[in-house]
Amino acid sequence: MKETKFVLDEKEMPTSWYNILPDLPEPLPPVLHPGTGNPVTPDDLAPLFPMGLIMQEFSPERYIEIPEEVQEIYRTWRPTILHRAHRLEKALDTPAKIFYKYEGTSQAGSHKPNTAVAQAYYNKKEGIKRIASETGAGQWGSSLAFACALFGLELKVYMVKVSYNQKPYRRIMMETWGANCVPSPSPDTKAGRDMLAKDPDCPGSLGLAISEAVEDAATREDTHYSLGSVLNHVLLHQTIIGQEAMKQMEMANAYPDIIVGCIGGGSNFAGMFLPFVKDKIRGRKPDLRIINVEPTSCPTLTKGLYAYDFGDAAGMTPLLKMHTLGHEFIPPAVHAGGLRYHGMAPIICHLHKLGLVEARAVPQVATFEAGVTFARTEGIISAPETNHAIRATIDEALKCKESGESKTILLAHSGHGHFDMAAYESYLSGKLTDYEYPEEKVKEALAHLPGTPTV
Amino acid sequence: MKETKFVLDEKEMPTSWYNILPDLPEPLPPVLHPGTGNPVTPDDLAPLFPMGLIMQEFSPERYIEIPEEVQEIYRTWRPTILHRAHRLEKALDTPAKIFYKYEGTSQAGSHKPNTAVAQAYYNKKEGIKRIASETGAGQWGSSLAFACALFGLELKVYMVKVSYNQKPYRRIMMETWGANCVPSPSPDTKAGRDMLAKDPDCPGSLGLAISEAVEDAATREDTHYSLGSVLNHVLLHQTIIGQEAMKQMEMANAYPDIIVGCIGGGSNFAGMFLPFVKDKIRGRKPDLRIINVEPTSCPTLTKGLYAYDFGDAAGMTPLLKMHTLGHEFIPPAVHAGGLRYHGMAPIICHLHKLGLVEARAVPQVATFEAGVTFARTEGIISAPETNHAIRATIDEALKCKESGESKTILLAHSGHGHFDMAAYESYLSGKLTDYEYPEEKVKEALAHLPGTPTV
Repeated sequence: MKETKFVLDEKEMPTSWYNILPDLPEPLPPVLHPGTGNPVTPDDLAPLFPMGLIMQEFSPERYIEIPEEVQEIYRTWRPTILHRAHRLEKALDTPAKIFYKYEGTSQAGSHKPNTAVAQAYYNKKEGIKRIASETGAGQWGSSLAFACALFGLELKVYMVKVSYNQKPYRRIMMETWGANCVPSPSPDTKAGRDMLAKDPDCPGSLGLAISEAVEDAATREDTHYSLGSVLNHVLLHQTIIGQEAMKQMEMANAYPDIIVGCIGGGSNFAGMFLPFVKDKIRGRKPDLRIINVEPTSCPTLTKGLYAYDFGDAAGMTPLLKMHTLGHEFIPPAVHAGGLRYHGMAPIICHLHKLGLVEARAVPQVATFEAGVTFARTEGIISAPETNHAIRATIDEALKCKESGESKTILLAHSGHGHFDMAAYESYLSGKLTDYEYPEEKVKEALAHLPGTPTV
Repeated sequence: MKETKFVLDEKEMPTSWYNILPDLPEPLPPVLHPGTGNPVTPDDLAPLFPMGLIMQEFSPERYIEIPEEVQEIYRTWRPTILHRAHRLEKALDTPAKIFYKYEGTSQAGSHKPNTAVAQAYYNKKEGIKRIASETGAGQWGSSLAFACALFGLELKVYMVKVSYNQKPYRRIMMETWGANCVPSPSPDTKAGRDMLAKDPDCPGSLGLAISEAVEDAATREDTHYSLGSVLNHVLLHQTIIGQEAMKQMEMANAYPDIIVGCIGGGSNFAGMFLPFVKDKIRGRKPDLRIINVEPTSCPTLTKGLYAYDFGDAAGMTPLLKMHTLGHEFIPPAVHAGGLRYHGMAPIICHLHKLGLVEARAVPQVATFEAGVTFARTEGIISAPETNHAIRATIDEALKCKESGESKTILLAHSGHGHFDMAAYESYLSGKLTDYEYPEEKVKEALAHLPGTPTV
């Protein structure tokens, strides 16, 4: 019998998150206060986040225990399964061994609940009654709605208006879990009202939705703000993925030569590769390749500048040292909504600068071609974001076919595409197009960087 | 640590299907040829089905080995997980222990692939190149498309036109897996053309779609027909669910007092309870209660007549002894599309007559109320069909709260509701209504039964 799945019992689920900060060969550049130019302090962040999360953002501890209440909810869907893609390997006629860790069996359908549950827990624990957040197409908003339902927290989600109107199903998911979801710009905040006064038909943007959620949280005593990617504590929570994968690769008597994942803000893929990059840093597996895959339409890591920039479009957040296309950058409306972000998790950018991870941009049509191949072999219809990682996985497997090498590839599969069928229809009917971001437009967007403050 | 999940390794997956036929206290009434009134023979069915499946339909063997090729594909998502619903129990404040076996992690999102994969295999093995089938809202069509993709079989799905137009996402799933899906009535069959000539705007019906698929299969040498429920071999394939559940209940040191599931054609729930009903027949658990839950809008088992009737609306199939609302019965357009069938699996009806299982009808609004409670406690957004079973599970758990009894309830959870969010929106916005089928309309439909032929 060929082994198809590597399944951990819930008793074998990791009980700590792995924190890369103490293992970095060079320390991460500090987050800066936009006014003073000084590194932000925990107190600076206290109006928006609970102290439990803020301390994780800066923690020097290698392992941070997962609270039992969080573990208990993780266990409703975790550990997730590591699959061996026998059928895909056969279809590609490759000597490569392809494994994929599938996060699509969470109740919200992706990796996002790994951090949503943790964030809801720490807010609840510190007496917060209500959370405000933003969402684009709805992956993050629905995951946070799931988590808030389980902890009995109120949730208000500012959803980009164009998605609110065109993609109602993720909104209905949020409402089913009890969240209040409004189209952004909304009349509920000053930022929203100002925009509506200027342009009543404004379709909204993620940047504006962030501004509304941050304002909501900053102006209400009972409310905090929550972010679904980019920050250190978000990546930390996602390391449950990579730690499980390590145990499961051991069950398979294998260790990856190549790890592949898609990056938007970077939390899913970092969650997978951070426990492995530790092995690379320590010399256990110096030739391990870690491939970050992004869309050519939003080429943050491959074409962006490594500089200090705001995390949001409105310029309200602290300054992060990261690869950025400029916080005013508006990516084209490709189907991988989760990969349309102007910046990138500072941890990933730092590892990229240190030469520990690499980056690759792939065009949209080729990602759906890969996704359909995956659906017709492994059966899973994947999220458009994930299709980027599948594209690079297939490309690496085909290289193995040419070279005759039997490399072991580990794919971080972030979730299913059940709410993205319109994108598949567009591909299948030949209407999908590619979009390569022009060099000049990148330069133009980068001209508006805030510049590095003097520390 | 509270145990939340009971997980079988793929090596522990059952390797046989369980066939109830030899264990029935009285033999199942025969299927009759509508022309001669004689029991149908395997040869009568050969134009539509491969002999491998036909022999299973009549088999006297208690266990039928699952072919290795089928097991290999089952292992891409099976064994499925048995969950303990701690959070639901707590919310209901019940002493009942609630377990649920969740089939929603299959690639198509329900139990349907359990038989789709088996049916595709036997057709492929006997040299068939192409399958024709019908689908209503698309659960069955998409599961069969998944299975045909994995076996390299062509598939043509006749999809009821009103669903084809209103619910495009399951159609796109089918196309992603490579199936050809057309709206029914179609110009591709005589049955379709006749209807289009009479009424070019005909919205279609499941009965007509069956007629088109059967005609397609009967008139092409390379093509067979495939059905997603009702028949013995379909129920047989689903017994993988109940056999896994038995092992998992043992892991939990428990045995159900009550098993609950929803019934449309009956295959999902029978797949769960048949291995347990054997224990009841043999006296190991004589007081085991097995509750079949159906909608009040389509009350086949609670209000229908136990009589010979056609399986399809057009009257083309052999005659089955079953509870029926009359093959001309057109159920109202409730959201649980999978429960809108005029008949019921003969095995379930026979067990009902023998007093081994019971039946209950529940109204639509109450099922969604239960589904939302489940979503906000266990996290899973369930299919509208499954919500019927969840309703009855909650009702039984609340009875335990009143009586103080700590009964063990096992819920057959057939799948997720990711393609049914419009139904949740209708419920959440207060627009959902109940529909109790009036006694007189049932009588009217039953007046058109074909009558029992003389055997």
